[in-house]
Amino acid sequence: MDFRAVALPIGRLLIVVAAFMMIPAGADLVARNPDWVVFATSALVSGCIGALLSAALARRAFPFRPRETFLFVNAAWFTFSFAGAIPLYASGLDISFADAFFEAASGLTTTGSTILTGLDGLPPGILLWRSLLQWIGGIGIVVIGIWLLPGLRVGGSQLFAIESSEKTAKPYGRIEPFLFRLLGLYLVLTLSCGLLYYLAGMTAFQAINHAMTTISTGGFSTSDSSMGQFSSLAILWIAIVYMLASGMPFLFLIKLAERREVPHPEQVRVYLLFVAGASFLAFLSMHATTEDTPFRQFTHSVFNIVSVVTTTGYATTDYLQWGNFAIALFFVLTFFGGCSGSTSGGFKIFRVAILLSSIRAILKRIVHPHRIIEPRFGGAKVTPGVMEGVLIFSVLYAGTFAVFAAVYAALGLDLATALSASATALANVGPGVGPIIGPAGTFQSLSDPVKWLLAVQMILGRLELIGGILVLTPDFWTET
Amino acid sequence: MDFRAVALPIGRLLIVVAAFMMIPAGADLVARNPDWVVFATSALVSGCIGALLSAALARRAFPFRPRETFLFVNAAWFTFSFAGAIPLYASGLDISFADAFFEAASGLTTTGSTILTGLDGLPPGILLWRSLLQWIGGIGIVVIGIWLLPGLRVGGSQLFAIESSEKTAKPYGRIEPFLFRLLGLYLVLTLSCGLLYYLAGMTAFQAINHAMTTISTGGFSTSDSSMGQFSSLAILWIAIVYMLASGMPFLFLIKLAERREVPHPEQVRVYLLFVAGASFLAFLSMHATTEDTPFRQFTHSVFNIVSVVTTTGYATTDYLQWGNFAIALFFVLTFFGGCSGSTSGGFKIFRVAILLSSIRAILKRIVHPHRIIEPRFGGAKVTPGVMEGVLIFSVLYAGTFAVFAAVYAALGLDLATALSASATALANVGPGVGPIIGPAGTFQSLSDPVKWLLAVQMILGRLELIGGILVLTPDFWTET
Repeated sequence: MDFRAVALPIGRLLIVVAAFMMIPAGADLVARNPDWVVFATSALVSGCIGALLSAALARRAFPFRPRETFLFVNAAWFTFSFAGAIPLYASGLDISFADAFFEAASGLTTTGSTILTGLDGLPPGILLWRSLLQWIGGIGIVVIGIWLLPGLRVGGSQLFAIESSEKTAKPYGRIEPFLFRLLGLYLVLTLSCGLLYYLAGMTAFQAINHAMTTISTGGFSTSDSSMGQFSSLAILWIAIVYMLASGMPFLFLIKLAERREVPHPEQVRVYLLFVAGASFLAFLSMHATTEDTPFRQFTHSVFNIVSVVTTTGYATTDYLQWGNFAIALFFVLTFFGGCSGSTSGGFKIFRVAILLSSIRAILKRIVHPHRIIEPRFGGAKVTPGVMEGVLIFSVLYAGTFAVFAAVYAALGLDLATALSASATALANVGPGVGPIIGPAGTFQSLSDPVKWLLAVQMILGRLELIGGILVLTPDFWTET
Repeated sequence: MDFRAVALPIGRLLIVVAAFMMIPAGADLVARNPDWVVFATSALVSGCIGALLSAALARRAFPFRPRETFLFVNAAWFTFSFAGAIPLYASGLDISFADAFFEAASGLTTTGSTILTGLDGLPPGILLWRSLLQWIGGIGIVVIGIWLLPGLRVGGSQLFAIESSEKTAKPYGRIEPFLFRLLGLYLVLTLSCGLLYYLAGMTAFQAINHAMTTISTGGFSTSDSSMGQFSSLAILWIAIVYMLASGMPFLFLIKLAERREVPHPEQVRVYLLFVAGASFLAFLSMHATTEDTPFRQFTHSVFNIVSVVTTTGYATTDYLQWGNFAIALFFVLTFFGGCSGSTSGGFKIFRVAILLSSIRAILKRIVHPHRIIEPRFGGAKVTPGVMEGVLIFSVLYAGTFAVFAAVYAALGLDLATALSASATALANVGPGVGPIIGPAGTFQSLSDPVKWLLAVQMILGRLELIGGILVLTPDFWTET
């Protein structure tokens, strides 16, 4: 393992972090808030360390094999979360470092769980920094999901490799032709979403923040009541459309915009059907338990379902008041997530489809032992490697969920809160169920060890588990 | 699908049921308890239906392919549970049919969860019938586990096929040479266990009943306080040794008795290490929370751990009083189970070992994409078929657990009770955790729908899930 290969891009990353920190510094300076010094100092420290690392290691070629890649993505998430936590800790918020790290990791992983209350009265720098963390995290996730994970064959994602890496010696497909189009799409989505929010009645500051946390399916808001602060149904429908789009594969959106043949349309089809079915069930629950016009109920049902399925985590209202069935529905939906190659997290819809098809194929093989039966996805055969990847991912997903939930319970959380905290961190959704961490609560009251573990679990979820678990195995570190 | 192929052995099974029903009929007759009429009538009805089916279909050859086998084992468990419930329902117990079916299914699957209280005062016929159900169920499970499941390649169990069925056209290995030795071993274990219990201070009736429910790892007792009714440590150690033995593969025990090379010794090694580790943790918990001599604490720790790991389900004391860690420990242990080819249920220790090895191999392949890395178990390579079987079993196990737990929660159980009820039924353990269904409680207070579903889940667990889920798939019923 050549650690210099990892340290060099980490150094460059820190320079990027420093550049982005100047934005909240500027906002606080304009608003005459003393926190601008905190952001400026953090930027200075981060930038200097980054520049030193880059200068010391630049102009030399280091090997960048799969193991350096995995170590880098782990180091990148933790370093960025750490750097992002510093201004939150040093600001006027008066929170512990565990709180600050939790908030930064929750932002960067686009989870959206928060330990802060009184958001409405916070200075603009902190609010902007939270939104920026999600916005930067979102594009990072798309790049990792489109480029790194398929190349590294993590959890069956090789299905979506840009070019087949099984035939070439290079582990990754070529991202360069897509990178500018991806960044362009991300910018266009964010700007158009923000503009529409503004036209529909948000202030410019609200529109900028919510556009960034919508497109990244992050879910941080500028108010404790999240999207519930806006009574305009137009705003909610804009959010629904942009959340839905951000839960789709970004390569799919690019091809769609270019009017070319879209890759893996079946993934998007299953995703939309899934959202429609869940929205219908939520509408029935809400209609049976609350009083309002059907269209308003329909809007709120669709909004909150789309928010959970895309792992955004906004809420317009406390949907846990819609009865026991709704609680179970939202808890179960926490696990699923959107499409591969999007900003959303979770198990991912394509894995559900491949898992069901694989189970069906294997059961069929037992009844017909002399026939060749292969799982299929969208009309094509699923290769044994993809099937194996999805199966291992499923087992690790269930195992990680269960182990963290058990630890949270052992650390004193009641079983329902422990289970839903584990699920919402793993799938990077944001709110859990239950009175403490539900859409009407916050993660503030949890103990520091629980907050640290939740932050780790969010990052694990973002590395599609395998990327994070790998570096914890002894095999990863033995050279032979 | 030729239903006559299934109806014939079901008819023969009913005759066996009738014969066994005469035993509690005789016991109640001797004790001058009016229930003897109930048992005798049930035997008559069951025997007549069985004789009619057998006579109508005998002397003809029907195809018995994998699908007929699966349909038969499903039909056998449900028919036997139904027939076994009739005398309980018609007796003086005054319970609903849901209760009676739950108790019979819990007996026959050797789960050992009970809806009855006041066991100490019940007539001998009912107590004997409960023990007999477990004893018959136990040997049935061993035969299915040794013979059918490996031949049908269910959940990776082909690893333990008596002879390789991958090369022959016949789906099943030859059981005939083993059948008499299996029955002999089962009888010897039961009789010697019963004799030792008697010598250690049980009454003859207690010894007979507890011997039958120990060897079958069933866990029904003749007292509400289960094995806690005996203060003799000798009785507890006899139970520990016989439970441990019954959690081992019966073919292993036969070869061991014949002083021949034992098959798959690593499975037994992992099992014993697992039990030792868990007992140590339980001892620490008990020692920290209760007052007693260390040897008594050691005995109770080992006893209750062995009881849960072998899926027996006896209890000597309410181990949920040993603190939060003990509650988590016993809940987690509920899932595991003993060895394949034993009377115990659950996930099975060999699958844990293969799963860990498979995960390790697949993670290693990601880091070293150009190397061939295969999972191993006990020094031998794990074939892709076994690995795939174990992975699918793992996913179905987690899925079945979660789906049933969610339904129990939706039917009104609190989350902790719902989760532990689902786990204990699926793994055929018996007691759950929590005040309602813990070792100090019973399943009596649950609603009828929950009891029906728990009974179904117990049978599903006994068919290693796949055997039961298969018949629910449309593919199973389409001929082509």
